[in-house]
Amino acid sequence: MATKLSGSAQLNGKLLTKHEINCDMGEGFGRYQIADDDEIIKYIDRANIACGFHAGDYNIMLKTVQNAKKYGVKCGSHPGLPDKIGFGRRKWDIPPDEIYKLILYQTGALKAFLDAENVPLSHIKPHGELYFYIERDEEIMRAALKAIKVFGVPVLGAKNAHYVKIAKEEGVEFIQELYVDCDYDSKGGLVPPAKSRLKTPEIIHDSIYEAGLKDQITDQNDDLIDLHFDGNPISVCLHSDMTTALENIKKAREAIDKLNK
Amino acid sequence: MATKLSGSAQLNGKLLTKHEINCDMGEGFGRYQIADDDEIIKYIDRANIACGFHAGDYNIMLKTVQNAKKYGVKCGSHPGLPDKIGFGRRKWDIPPDEIYKLILYQTGALKAFLDAENVPLSHIKPHGELYFYIERDEEIMRAALKAIKVFGVPVLGAKNAHYVKIAKEEGVEFIQELYVDCDYDSKGGLVPPAKSRLKTPEIIHDSIYEAGLKDQITDQNDDLIDLHFDGNPISVCLHSDMTTALENIKKAREAIDKLNK
Amino acid sequence: MATKLSGSAQLNGKLLTKHEINCDMGEGFGRYQIADDDEIIKYIDRANIACGFHAGDYNIMLKTVQNAKKYGVKCGSHPGLPDKIGFGRRKWDIPPDEIYKLILYQTGALKAFLDAENVPLSHIKPHGELYFYIERDEEIMRAALKAIKVFGVPVLGAKNAHYVKIAKEEGVEFIQELYVDCDYDSKGGLVPPAKSRLKTPEIIHDSIYEAGLKDQITDQNDDLIDLHFDGNPISVCLHSDMTTALENIKKAREAIDKLNK
Amino acid sequence: MATKLSGSAQLNGKLLTKHEINCDMGEGFGRYQIADDDEIIKYIDRANIACGFHAGDYNIMLKTVQNAKKYGVKCGSHPGLPDKIGFGRRKWDIPPDEIYKLILYQTGALKAFLDAENVPLSHIKPHGELYFYIERDEEIMRAALKAIKVFGVPVLGAKNAHYVKIAKEEGVEFIQELYVDCDYDSKGGLVPPAKSRLKTPEIIHDSIYEAGLKDQITDQNDDLIDLHFDGNPISVCLHSDMTTALENIKKAREAIDKLNK
Repeated sequence: MATKLSGSAQLNGKLLTKHEINCDMGEGFGRYQIADDDEIIKYIDRANIACGFHAGDYNIMLKTVQNAKKYGVKCGSHPGLPDKIGFGRRKWDIPPDEIYKLILYQTGALKAFLDAENVPLSHIKPHGELYFYIERDEEIMRAALKAIKVFGVPVLGAKNAHYVKIAKEEGVEFIQELYVDCDYDSKGGLVPPAKSRLKTPEIIHDSIYEAGLKDQITDQNDDLIDLHFDGNPISVCLHSDMTTALENIKKAREAIDKLNK
Repeated sequence: MATKLSGSAQLNGKLLTKHEINCDMGEGFGRYQIADDDEIIKYIDRANIACGFHAGDYNIMLKTVQNAKKYGVKCGSHPGLPDKIGFGRRKWDIPPDEIYKLILYQTGALKAFLDAENVPLSHIKPHGELYFYIERDEEIMRAALKAIKVFGVPVLGAKNAHYVKIAKEEGVEFIQELYVDCDYDSKGGLVPPAKSRLKTPEIIHDSIYEAGLKDQITDQNDDLIDLHFDGNPISVCLHSDMTTALENIKKAREAIDKLNK
Repeated sequence: MATKLSGSAQLNGKLLTKHEINCDMGEGFGRYQIADDDEIIKYIDRANIACGFHAGDYNIMLKTVQNAKKYGVKCGSHPGLPDKIGFGRRKWDIPPDEIYKLILYQTGALKAFLDAENVPLSHIKPHGELYFYIERDEEIMRAALKAIKVFGVPVLGAKNAHYVKIAKEEGVEFIQELYVDCDYDSKGGLVPPAKSRLKTPEIIHDSIYEAGLKDQITDQNDDLIDLHFDGNPISVCLHSDMTTALENIKKAREAIDKLNK
Repeated sequence: MATKLSGSAQLNGKLLTKHEINCDMGEGFGRYQIADDDEIIKYIDRANIACGFHAGDYNIMLKTVQNAKKYGVKCGSHPGLPDKIGFGRRKWDIPPDEIYKLILYQTGALKAFLDAENVPLSHIKPHGELYFYIERDEEIMRAALKAIKVFGVPVLGAKNAHYVKIAKEEGVEFIQELYVDCDYDSKGGLVPPAKSRLKTPEIIHDSIYEAGLKDQITDQNDDLIDLHFDGNPISVCLHSDMTTALENIKKAREAIDKLNK
């Protein structure tokens, strides 16, 4: 049984009006592409836009903002550790005050492009190891939340009662995510995609649909986990860099649209 | 005789209430320092803060903003070309759309630190080769001004009627600077510090004082150039990385304070 | 009529025993790929391996060296300007002494991986704007050649009598390349791929075959240019990052193999 | 009592003919300087030259090699983690195969400058966190030693019997260092300079002299530790970036010269 999220009933209810898809976008660099952003952006509701530290650069950032604007997709920052070779996925002993500053720096940079295009900053979603570092270490968590508070937007995060509690203390709203293209372990923790069982577009579709109806998902041991969205809208996160990413997202869109009817 | 700045009479008059000193700050990187920022900041009115491309990083940016706040110094961004090895001083064939984006990125990043500290962004002053690139190439100039316009703050620049005109067209206010720690050539153009005659703190003091009284400065040929501040306040720029930088700035402060009495 | 290359008769004759294909390899970065290196490497004779400045990193460098070794492909360095965002393709005012040093640095780094794998360094081929900068500016050319001389290997370059002459003066051997996936202008200069007419795999095949038989190629105006390989083996350069790169290279391989029979 | 270094008697005996000073050099970056290299180089025997990852760049590397050559100072590489903001001093979860490659890359780059100046590579000394990572983790240690073996030069390291043993297994010779500008703990481990008691130039002089005569040093608890140089020459390491670095090194030179008489 997963940790009960106290007060989760109100979490997404305040912030989302319907189920949605969020997706990392703009994670190329220079001439390099990593995902079919131009297509994927058409099927999602919320883009987490890389800011130049683990991926992305100023050219890609503006293009992504403009594409998101064109398709009515919400724009949030996707700050990461300054490690392009490791794609921001390696543990690194960066102190809390620096985590605070690197989130400010990256989100501020993105906000300039949003301001230029008259698009509001809608949220912040930390990337990769920064995402996990925040979940793992309360000092880092508070430093990150303090930075996010400066922008007055919600943070996106996975199911984690402690994180929700600290966010509340720090004055940051929390949008709870659901992951369906990788596994959950029995405690509700995320299994990295590389260690997860393969999720076909159909499995992804069905997982979302069931989560919406039953507020549960099947974990890596085929046991059911309670999700505790409690009837509130779900923000499903889908990876844009998987082999079948575009198909995953199209099928997820179908499930989300059915749930939203 | 220097180019007559049409309408210069109103230039600084709208924007400055008294003579002032502006200075580049935060141009260290990591463990590296390049100037005695902690002392210099006490004697200036306006800091041009490096944003991580030619110099500076997120640690130094926050520290500089906090120091500026402590001493009541105005904070502007000091964006540069992404060239730390060359300190942003080498010609580089970067297209206008990218100049637009790199100014947005850097200034946005700085603005996040200012927002965190409740300090307004007061201006933007391009650094080094970006400063000269803008003056030299009208397409680059317009791209830079378009980025600056997003922030609704004035640009700092040297005496240049064409630049002032284009800024007006692009909707950006212009604060005209005076340089006293390097030479002017006979056309009112700046001579790089390395090729200028040595300016002692005393010379700097006297140049400012005379500029304030007579609206003129002595050029590299010992001829007088008209400055065309036309009785409006002057923003004197002083380099923080010269050997005698702190002494230069202290003596400049004396001259400025006398003029402001 | 193209410039006569004085002494071209001996150029490739001393250095190549048969016609060959050279190709830029290892131009990914971190998680990013830009070409199907794993397949392309099977069809080429000589790899120009990126060294981390315009593209590539230490992970990709070792992998590329190991792949090249596996397929018996010669390994040269492919140094570029330190500009990953611009992929080393933008003009940049870097002084000659620094060009000398950045070629030393990058080629030395590659050589360590070659030493680790007991593979000799076979040549140096500058990348992108560095390639053109060298051809354009004699001071830069001499600085580059001085660096190349340290390694005692030949430089790869396109048809250019002046370059060949200076290389000889600086003690560096010259391997003359042929380009067939982009156009030549009427003076024998290369037209950038983006401005060239489309070259299908079949056109590429036929161009190579005719070049081998007739020592001529059709330029962008459909006129014939003399190539002046003078019966010596040709090193054909093919881009690995074009849409049909793998097909281009397979068809080029056929033409080369026929010529070598 | 410190760990007995088995076989330490032969360690430096094979590799050094007399007591010496080694020092990190070339740790500036771009316009930034961090130590008075031009003076310090005159008083040392062996330079550990930064290679562009934690500090240094191609300009500084060549200049440092040329200065070392001028004063007859041995040149080794000083590879670090790719973290200029943290000066290579932060823990970072980089896997062994990448440690292998980043030592190859950096040392290869330095070797090109040495080859250009006809100076042999004399040793490799890992920097900062890489130095400690190697001492702490046997997989990392073996990966580093495998890279060092490619160059056939000794590694410099502090007193550590396990390290010496593994180096021998991996075919790398070990030069044992003595630190005198920071403290040892009671187990012979190094105390970071920031947490050490202040070491004046006089203390440094006396520590070296006593170490040479008695093969012992006073630890942070004022107890004597056996050093186990066993009559063999000592390589004293001195930090170039301390406030009194130049004075430290001059006094160390005096002590070393007396011991070598």
